[in-house]
Order: sequence, then structure tokens, then C-alpha cells
Amino acid sequence: MKGYFITFEGPDGSGKTTQIGLLKDYLKEIGFEVVVTREPGGTSIGEAIREIILDSAYGEMTPVTEMLLYAAARAQHVDELIKPALESGKIVLCDRFVDSSLAYQGFGRGLGIELIERVNKVALNGINPDMTFFFDLDPKEGLKRGQARGEGVDRLELESMDFHQRVYDGFNGLCLRYPDRFKRVDASMGIHDIHKETINRILQLLKDKK
Amino acid sequence: MKGYFITFEGPDGSGKTTQIGLLKDYLKEIGFEVVVTREPGGTSIGEAIREIILDSAYGEMTPVTEMLLYAAARAQHVDELIKPALESGKIVLCDRFVDSSLAYQGFGRGLGIELIERVNKVALNGINPDMTFFFDLDPKEGLKRGQARGEGVDRLELESMDFHQRVYDGFNGLCLRYPDRFKRVDASMGIHDIHKETINRILQLLKDKK
Repeated sequence: MKGYFITFEGPDGSGKTTQIGLLKDYLKEIGFEVVVTREPGGTSIGEAIREIILDSAYGEMTPVTEMLLYAAARAQHVDELIKPALESGKIVLCDRFVDSSLAYQGFGRGLGIELIERVNKVALNGINPDMTFFFDLDPKEGLKRGQARGEGVDRLELESMDFHQRVYDGFNGLCLRYPDRFKRVDASMGIHDIHKETINRILQLLKDKK
Repeated sequence: MKGYFITFEGPDGSGKTTQIGLLKDYLKEIGFEVVVTREPGGTSIGEAIREIILDSAYGEMTPVTEMLLYAAARAQHVDELIKPALESGKIVLCDRFVDSSLAYQGFGRGLGIELIERVNKVALNGINPDMTFFFDLDPKEGLKRGQARGEGVDRLELESMDFHQRVYDGFNGLCLRYPDRFKRVDASMGIHDIHKETINRILQLLKDKK
């Protein structure tokens, strides 16, 4: 692949979306073509699946159904958007990717890493992130920030604090499991400090991969 | 499981829905509790997924996305509706089930049986049909009947005749692979002859399983 695939993980409210916006502007400024996308979603079909996944009316959704819906949206995302962008040399910045399935469904729902990786292997079609930022923020703090923004609460945000703590522990486990790919960012820092750190990490990646 | 799980497979237009209605009335008449359901669908979440799967506007849907969406709807269907009904001793009559995924995505889309069975294993959660009727009808004839009914055409019906021929060949392969479970029905027969044959097969199943 000629391009670079960079994903952003961490609890809601940890500042991923803000930082992705800043990075996009910076990377365009220095001459790269940049695609910003998100999961679940990123394509028309993926956004339709997203509406089902996050609908707080569907409290009866089973963990396996949830996991398969994320994988379905991802398969479409990879083939329709991410792979072609990477093949044409673009930088793809993606708000959540397969690691969210590992953390939320594998750890949070207790389905286990092995099952999530097995099902997602077919969805990924050989595409893996070159670099993954974990925006490390205490889950209590993340939920507080989310509430402060006054947005509607989706089905996953409605889960218990126990669930969000398992997800957080899961992300920490993934950082240990994939130390080369994962870059931990202290998401309690100020916006500009986080921006500087993510830029430095990405410039290092662009240099290393050349 | 105290109940009986009977599935109906075959091309659109082969008369599955009509026969399921007749069987339901008959089985209720002789004292059984009967649940009639269909795939994709059967639950609120499943029907929402069905709308995405069959929407003819989504021509860009990849085979893997399609396969995962069917599996997601199925996981919900099994846990929310089919399993509880079987546990309480009911007869479940289901219009299409996992064999449709094997025929349409495995053979029709060329994803292969092995992948479909691997992904669906987690969706099935140990539930398998006790008996599966294959309504054997030439796919050309099925499409003609469907058009004659004047219903809207969904995304899968829009596929080429080659595709529908591969699906048909797939169902024939499944009959050979699972000879105990599959019962072939000549769907070119009249409604009452088919009804008599399906009743006899089901009465045999109820007797054997007692």
C-alpha cells in the first residue's frame, strides 16, 4: 500500500474527533491527500448499519449481533473506501476501527479476543492500521465530558460503568499486545499538547515507512 | 429442545410462503403451538437489517458485508425468538435459514461453504433445523412466477440468471451433503399435492423424534 492508515481509539469524550480535524488540516498543509472517516459508518451502507447499532431503542440486541453488525459495516468500509484510498497513496484518518470491536465486544461484552479477530479477518481483507493512537482517559471522565457536550446518548453509552471499565482495561491490554502499532496519548493533556504529540508520531511513521 | 425447528428453502416464487401458511393452520388444528417466521427478519432488529440487505439502492454492497448482515440478523433471530420457542415446545416454521446463506453467499457469491459455516456457527448458538424442505423449482420459473406476482424487485432478485443458477446448484449440493435433514419437494406440483407431502414428512418427524 502506498498510503498510510492511522486509526484513533479510546473512550467517547477523549478528544479523538477534535484531534483528527487538526491533523487533517496539518497534513493537507504539508501536501498530503487526507481522507477522514469513522466507524461504524464511513459509507452509505455503513451509516445505515450505524443507525441500527447505536439506536437506544434496541436494548435487546445480543452481543453477537452487535459484533457481526460492526464487522459488516467494516467490510464495506474497507473495500469501498479505505483500500482504494490507501492504494492511491492517501493518508486515511479513521475514528475507531477493529480495535474498538476487540475492546467493546471482546472485553466489554465478554465475547473474547479470539472470536472477534476470527470474524473480522474476513472483513479486514488484509488491511491493518499502520499506527493506532489510544487516547487514554479514565472512562468516568470520558462519560462526564460526553454528557457536558449535551449530545443524545446512544445504546453503548447507556451501558454500566463496569462495562466501560472493562472496555478501558481492554484497550490497555491491546497496547501491551501490539506495542509497535499502538501509541498511547495522555488525553487529559491540553488540545495543543496532544496535537504536537500526534504530529510527531505521524511524521516518524512517514519517515520510517518511506 | 422440546420443540421442532423446520425450515423452508428454495428460490423466490417456489411457493414456500403459501405452504408455510397451510402447514401452520394444519398443525394448530391438531393441537400444536406454531410460530411462523422468516429470514432475514423475524425480530425488530432483524427486519431493520432486512431493509438494508434487500434495498436495491445498495448495489455497491460487497459479498462479505451481505454475508455478515445475514449472520447478524440470524444471531438475533435465534436468541430472541427461535430458541425460546423451541425451549417451550413449539413448532417453528421458518421461511429461509442458514442454508440460504450457504446457497446465496457460499455458492451464488462464491464465498465458499467453509467461510459461511465458520461465521454462522457463532450466530446459530447450537440451534440447527430438525428438517429442511428444499422447494425444487427451476430458477427461471421461480423468477417468472415472482414477476407475475408484480411485487417490487429486491437487490438479490436483480442478480443475473447465472447467479440464480449457481444458487440452485448450491441447494442441490446441500441436499446431497445433508441427506437426513433435507427433504426435496417438487415445487412444480399443485398446491394440495405439496401440502400433503410436507404434512406427511412432518408427521414422520414428530413420530421419530418422540
